[in-house]
Amino acid sequence: MFRTAELGRKVSKTVYAKEFPALRLRLIGVQQRLRWADFPVIVVFAGVDGAGKGETVNLLNEWMDPRWIQTRAYEHPSDEERERPEYWRYWRDLPRHGLIGVFLRSWYSQPVLDHVCGRSSDAEFDERLGAVGAFENMLEDDGALIIKFWMHLGKQAQYDRFKRLESDPLTSWRVTPDDWEHWRMYDRFVTAAERTIMRTNTARAPWHIVEGWDERYRSLTVGLILAEAIEKRLDQMDAAKRLAGQTAAKPVPPEKRKKKAKAKAAAAPAPPVDVAHALTPGLTVLSGLDMGLAYDGRDFEKDLEARQGRLNGLSRQARDRGISSILVFEGWDASGKGGAIRRLTSALDARTYTVIPMAAPTDEEKVHHYLWRFWRHLQRAGRVLVFDRSWYGRVLVERVEGFATDAEWQRAYAEINDFEKQLVNHGIVLVKFWMHVTKDEQLRRFKDRQKIPYKRWKLTEEDWRNREKWDLYELAVNDTVARTSTQIAPWTLVEGNDKRFARLKVIDTFCDKLEQAIAKSETGRRPEVVRDVVARIG
Amino acid sequence: MFRTAELGRKVSKTVYAKEFPALRLRLIGVQQRLRWADFPVIVVFAGVDGAGKGETVNLLNEWMDPRWIQTRAYEHPSDEERERPEYWRYWRDLPRHGLIGVFLRSWYSQPVLDHVCGRSSDAEFDERLGAVGAFENMLEDDGALIIKFWMHLGKQAQYDRFKRLESDPLTSWRVTPDDWEHWRMYDRFVTAAERTIMRTNTARAPWHIVEGWDERYRSLTVGLILAEAIEKRLDQMDAAKRLAGQTAAKPVPPEKRKKKAKAKAAAAPAPPVDVAHALTPGLTVLSGLDMGLAYDGRDFEKDLEARQGRLNGLSRQARDRGISSILVFEGWDASGKGGAIRRLTSALDARTYTVIPMAAPTDEEKVHHYLWRFWRHLQRAGRVLVFDRSWYGRVLVERVEGFATDAEWQRAYAEINDFEKQLVNHGIVLVKFWMHVTKDEQLRRFKDRQKIPYKRWKLTEEDWRNREKWDLYELAVNDTVARTSTQIAPWTLVEGNDKRFARLKVIDTFCDKLEQAIAKSETGRRPEVVRDVVARIG
Repeated sequence: MFRTAELGRKVSKTVYAKEFPALRLRLIGVQQRLRWADFPVIVVFAGVDGAGKGETVNLLNEWMDPRWIQTRAYEHPSDEERERPEYWRYWRDLPRHGLIGVFLRSWYSQPVLDHVCGRSSDAEFDERLGAVGAFENMLEDDGALIIKFWMHLGKQAQYDRFKRLESDPLTSWRVTPDDWEHWRMYDRFVTAAERTIMRTNTARAPWHIVEGWDERYRSLTVGLILAEAIEKRLDQMDAAKRLAGQTAAKPVPPEKRKKKAKAKAAAAPAPPVDVAHALTPGLTVLSGLDMGLAYDGRDFEKDLEARQGRLNGLSRQARDRGISSILVFEGWDASGKGGAIRRLTSALDARTYTVIPMAAPTDEEKVHHYLWRFWRHLQRAGRVLVFDRSWYGRVLVERVEGFATDAEWQRAYAEINDFEKQLVNHGIVLVKFWMHVTKDEQLRRFKDRQKIPYKRWKLTEEDWRNREKWDLYELAVNDTVARTSTQIAPWTLVEGNDKRFARLKVIDTFCDKLEQAIAKSETGRRPEVVRDVVARIG
Repeated sequence: MFRTAELGRKVSKTVYAKEFPALRLRLIGVQQRLRWADFPVIVVFAGVDGAGKGETVNLLNEWMDPRWIQTRAYEHPSDEERERPEYWRYWRDLPRHGLIGVFLRSWYSQPVLDHVCGRSSDAEFDERLGAVGAFENMLEDDGALIIKFWMHLGKQAQYDRFKRLESDPLTSWRVTPDDWEHWRMYDRFVTAAERTIMRTNTARAPWHIVEGWDERYRSLTVGLILAEAIEKRLDQMDAAKRLAGQTAAKPVPPEKRKKKAKAKAAAAPAPPVDVAHALTPGLTVLSGLDMGLAYDGRDFEKDLEARQGRLNGLSRQARDRGISSILVFEGWDASGKGGAIRRLTSALDARTYTVIPMAAPTDEEKVHHYLWRFWRHLQRAGRVLVFDRSWYGRVLVERVEGFATDAEWQRAYAEINDFEKQLVNHGIVLVKFWMHVTKDEQLRRFKDRQKIPYKRWKLTEEDWRNREKWDLYELAVNDTVARTSTQIAPWTLVEGNDKRFARLKVIDTFCDKLEQAIAKSETGRRPEVVRDVVARIG
């Protein structure tokens, strides 16, 4: 999930000097418009220590008019606070209509820390995150605009940052023993963070994950997202008010007008602002791949056979244990999905696997929820199910081509994460591949296909049209990885310019995952339900 | 919560014979319109055994066209089902657009049973209910209309029904040993049921609690709610389509039209259908009160003093232990709220209590969420806080007078339950009184007030206006008790025609609750946070 916030995004001094005065003016303008609006803005900062939460908040206060912005950071509860329910202190500080309230170490802080330090179970953690969701949902129902920033640093980056701060006498006070202790729990923190984001990311109040390493980048990013989100809401409210004024034959009472405006605002959630992309164009999870990777062995067929042998053995063990697998293949046209799938399945017993090539939905599928067609394909215990393109169509092709509305593809991330969680919790091995080729390599392959008669059928007009939208697709892929590469169901990005390298990587990845699952099942940590059915399948 | 479903609602044979043919025709008509709609209808039945779930579903199948309705009831999972994630079997059976899918022993069944039988903790239960909510929410986002019926019987009624079924050789097979075992767990079942309803009652998919004793009543109720809900949605979709067709200068592509229609439908949730009230007019929780209750002692002043003495002692103990109390007084105009509050507070140390008479919100309160003004009044540990009218204004006066929109007051039940849960979980003693007088008694008191000069100021034009809306208010009170009288925060309905009786009942109730809380604190089950502060307060 945080992969897209570890790309090393940076903004140069020149760009910053150009952007920042305009942004500052814009933010001041936003504040002036907001003053007369009938809703408050709630800005939440959370994330990794050292990722610049405090500095960014200070900067916002510096840039904006202090009369219309209020900042609250919470320490250990005071006596006064402990004598009242947990949320009392947040209620007390909620901004009134027209104000921006900035919250540091907010309602997210204690639930995450308690979980990281082992003071709360998974279920308790989820329950508290549920309470957070209910709280925000209630405020939003009342019209509040909530904007949430998760400031991120990679583990090494956090280490480097602490070291850098410590080495300077002027900033060494910023690094406390607590910080180092938290750093040692980094992995647990990130797991909890991911769960937090998955549980509390809604279409109305999405999390913006911001890479915190470069000060200029993160400052501009936060400022731009803030300005854009507030402006958008103000515009919507204005438009709704105009509309209410026009269509009403007789004057609409204020409360009704407010209702209409709210309804309108709720119906059209703002698409996420792609500030990161605008500030650091071309920088995505894909652009960071080493596309020079190639097979460097001597006898590919022999190496492939060895891997297929390993896979065959593991797949039998998995079948005997009732462990199912689901493989998802997504990727560019001509990126070698089909070839990789064939090399993989040829190592499996034909009775145990199924390949589902995704075509346009059938009539029957069209009159159901879009996930229904994937649920219906789920296999019995011990089988391998391969999707050649998958439910990710919703957030890739359907997004880019406009087949899904903004609201539909935006809420799909949460729906997909939830779906995959159910699969993994059931004990299914889920592996997701993005087959990547460069744009040049794709062109070469397209031309090859045109030349070779038996491959020509593969190339359609649509492939050329898709190619023209490469950048839009790349952006969609980047967002998809950001939102759906979770600890329980991470994406495997495959450097596919060299087909042989790609095919081996795919099989290796699947083998490793199978091996882990089998080892886990032997220590008895597999779900009981799967063990139940082993005998019958074997 | 189930109090309003234990009123003994009945429909006579005559009324049934008149209503049922029309209803049947209407349902068939609804089905015909629905066939061409682009959404499915999902009907969920849950509730107490013997409350007629199965019979009602059979009846629906009999009344309606079987081609457009499908019924599913779930048993213990099959092998096929156990090999896949829990929800697979429900996904498999989801109705396609245009169909009505009826679900018995559905996704609610296992979570509730596991909790009742002690196989899952509170937090786990909540997590599973959260999954239910996410599932329904996803289907609704996709356009599905979900209608949920909770069929209820009181504990005695369930016993009687089982006995009656057993005594008839033709129906005795219906009562299984399981049924009796469940009956023994009735109280735990009802607690779990309440939690389920609170957690999964949303504006889009509210629960309809139906009293299951009388077959004619429950059949008509379910049928009418069903017909009304589907018709309403169909009308909304039609209206949205007409509007989309009118305002568009150029033809709107189908996917956009769908989006608009959905947005419109989502923005205007249907108010709950008040079928119970229509079928059994005048029958509410208030109509069931014994209004002849009166003080029957010999020396009221002495009796009052004894109670005040008890309260004084208990309140000191509570203060010493840091136990706070919040008392809510709601009731008709001239129902004696003020008098009861004075008799109660005069037993308390003036430094420990605060009375908040609710007036119109201040300017500052108006620019915050409506619950903000109550949160800000919360007191430190060990205090007594009395609200003379309260947050219930949202679902009473604001509903009846139209100050709150339908969506606002409908979602307020969940918001209020959540708020009160936070209070009670924090260790606060929460007591809610509805002061009831009959309409005649109110008139008598109004006239008295007109006659007695020093009372005349109490009576305003508004009191007379409110009186005209008595029935609407009574309906609102009934719904409020149905939705917010929970195990952790039940309502106390006070029979107030006799002021002396009412005053003593109020003090007695508060004393009993205080005593329980003090006893609990001594067994060490009180929240830690409260114990922390005892020393400082004492």
